[in-house]
Amino acid sequence: MKAAVVTIGDEILIGQIVDTNSSYISKALDKIGIATHEMLSISDDKTHILNTLAKLQNNFDVVVITGGLGPTKDDITKKTFCEYFSDELIQNDSVLSHVKEMIEGFYKRPITQVNIEQALVPSKAKVLFNKVGTAPGMLMEQENTVFISLPGVPFEMKYLVDNEVVPFLIEKYDRPFIVHKTLMTYGRGESLIAEQIENWELNLPSFIKLAYLPSPGKVRLRLTARGENEQALNEAILNEVEKLKPIIGEIIVGFDEDESIEVVIGRKLAEKGLTLSTAESCTGGKIAQQITSVSGASRYFNGSIVAYSNEVKCEVLKVDKNTIDTFSVVSAEVAKEMAENCKSIFKTDFAIATTGNAGPTKGNSDAEIGTVFIALATSNTVFVEEFNFGQPREKVIDRAVGKAFEMLNEIILKN
Amino acid sequence: MKAAVVTIGDEILIGQIVDTNSSYISKALDKIGIATHEMLSISDDKTHILNTLAKLQNNFDVVVITGGLGPTKDDITKKTFCEYFSDELIQNDSVLSHVKEMIEGFYKRPITQVNIEQALVPSKAKVLFNKVGTAPGMLMEQENTVFISLPGVPFEMKYLVDNEVVPFLIEKYDRPFIVHKTLMTYGRGESLIAEQIENWELNLPSFIKLAYLPSPGKVRLRLTARGENEQALNEAILNEVEKLKPIIGEIIVGFDEDESIEVVIGRKLAEKGLTLSTAESCTGGKIAQQITSVSGASRYFNGSIVAYSNEVKCEVLKVDKNTIDTFSVVSAEVAKEMAENCKSIFKTDFAIATTGNAGPTKGNSDAEIGTVFIALATSNTVFVEEFNFGQPREKVIDRAVGKAFEMLNEIILKN
Repeated sequence: MKAAVVTIGDEILIGQIVDTNSSYISKALDKIGIATHEMLSISDDKTHILNTLAKLQNNFDVVVITGGLGPTKDDITKKTFCEYFSDELIQNDSVLSHVKEMIEGFYKRPITQVNIEQALVPSKAKVLFNKVGTAPGMLMEQENTVFISLPGVPFEMKYLVDNEVVPFLIEKYDRPFIVHKTLMTYGRGESLIAEQIENWELNLPSFIKLAYLPSPGKVRLRLTARGENEQALNEAILNEVEKLKPIIGEIIVGFDEDESIEVVIGRKLAEKGLTLSTAESCTGGKIAQQITSVSGASRYFNGSIVAYSNEVKCEVLKVDKNTIDTFSVVSAEVAKEMAENCKSIFKTDFAIATTGNAGPTKGNSDAEIGTVFIALATSNTVFVEEFNFGQPREKVIDRAVGKAFEMLNEIILKN
Repeated sequence: MKAAVVTIGDEILIGQIVDTNSSYISKALDKIGIATHEMLSISDDKTHILNTLAKLQNNFDVVVITGGLGPTKDDITKKTFCEYFSDELIQNDSVLSHVKEMIEGFYKRPITQVNIEQALVPSKAKVLFNKVGTAPGMLMEQENTVFISLPGVPFEMKYLVDNEVVPFLIEKYDRPFIVHKTLMTYGRGESLIAEQIENWELNLPSFIKLAYLPSPGKVRLRLTARGENEQALNEAILNEVEKLKPIIGEIIVGFDEDESIEVVIGRKLAEKGLTLSTAESCTGGKIAQQITSVSGASRYFNGSIVAYSNEVKCEVLKVDKNTIDTFSVVSAEVAKEMAENCKSIFKTDFAIATTGNAGPTKGNSDAEIGTVFIALATSNTVFVEEFNFGQPREKVIDRAVGKAFEMLNEIILKN
């Protein structure tokens, strides 16, 4: 079972937007045992689309395409599909009444000719009904390949993948199993880990593959097993993980597959009935934003104060002005006061505070660009650490957020 | 001048990470007149890499590849490059001394065999010296194609693109000009805009292409012109923009190419000497995070209170408990109080507040999932609007953030 995922749109090829659709689609396919062998982004150009479809046909079992289904002149996927499959567009009545309902009911305006054309679909296509938008998805089979065309708007694409595409593919194909297990490690470099686990890696069974996924401060180790017997795959992977524990157990902080650190932390806080708040200067609310991106965060997250000026640090977070004057606003002392005060303002078990200089200019302190202090207040103490995350701004903010989660994760494990 | 951008890595193909490198590379190429015609993501598999290189050779002038250059066993790009170009790996002394310096100087640990191997490069390759990491980039020419291989770590890739790849390509090729101009519009749907500008669009000169880039609440219109004379392209585009103004001028909020709404708002606030704060419930700090992602935000952004529980809304944001009890926490009245109190706590000219139910469960109010109230406090009044952004959670949060920026943008224009 081989799949290709294709995105159509010049906005991707000129770098105006990042393609997140392909990632969502390939993850959904992977979960049902269909491996994506190739992703492609191509232009809104008829010949380019036709050539791509021809190249993919019979080389892949499933081809999922997003983009180019909107109502405007640059959206040419539907017409090009017709040409490729020697088909013609016909009106689909249930799509038309749905489009009418959405435009007139939800958007409160009369339907236009452009809207009506959204209900035209190739006559041979299986229509994938799009409850959350006006452009339907389409599915066409030709020789050994199933071609699926979905709108490029992410939440519409996601709706159709979850509710139409995945159920269709599960029904149609017998699929092998793909089992992943990802170990999250913190605080040791990729090359050092590679040397330590070299013997273990050389002795992995041939159906298990290892990948290193390094990012600032952490390395994820992903084990992937493929085969016909799901239980055997799971057992084999667990067996390998057990062998790893004596070698690098101390740097493994989590085992879960798709889980980001904020999900792991959230679950641990909820399990232990502990609560968290944040006081953010240089991270500008990003810690809070990541924590609250997880549904159910209100069980353990009370809130945050983003204190972007010295006045706010003093007046809202109640940091002593003398501390700032004596030690500078980017200092361990200020970070500690921020964390302690945050903890008492929000009445939480833990509070995390950040103060630093993300750059590109020095701002209201003399600290080197990239310098960040992170403090973590717990029931009986405050930890504070100093970092220099270099440049640019985006990296400083992201690494500070990552480090804050890492410190929090360690503390929760001990509580 | 045609380019292809290739990413190598199973982590992309199984949807574990989103590829942001391709977008950065194609944008950098586009700026120097090199059009990316295709992006590809392929697996860490020797045959797959070899076949891809063969397919691209002579069909593209430039092929930029990222990934697979790390120090671990799953990083096979370098060896595969050698095989494709019938070359062998040799030690590069300046890379080796740089790797030593980074490991021993920055990471404070002895260099290992794995590190030393990072200094091996194909003998025919032009080495692209990577100041910010241990894996060098490589450039090989074969027949009509330049192949460039870069590490996949985003900040290393960015460093090499900006400092090595772009200067090399500028030196090597005569390139045409590509000029983009993007108009940002707010508050009107893609299909309605398409009907209104249909005649204008039909009469565009053939060297100018229009694209619609819709996202919740806004549509960007991108004009792209290609040709030999940069000044003539710029004039032709400006001429077309002037013709558009009488048709849809009232919904055009900005003209800048790469600017996001938070950059536009930031610049306008700074120009007018106005300040902003936010009080966020359902958006969880995302408005603050986006505002502070822009460097220099401290000139106009004072801070935020993320009030994720009723207690925090009452105790930190000083919302009257009676207001919550009478109208519910997801209500116009609570949003208004949050905005007004936020404005006075942070002493800003404007304050934006959000309260809503992002789902997937109902939480501490009876409001429908997707219901969000957004209030905007100004010097003399508070505006409040009610929305239903549907589901899922991620969309509700993103649309609420987008709507908040839209309301703010409108108000700033009037001030």
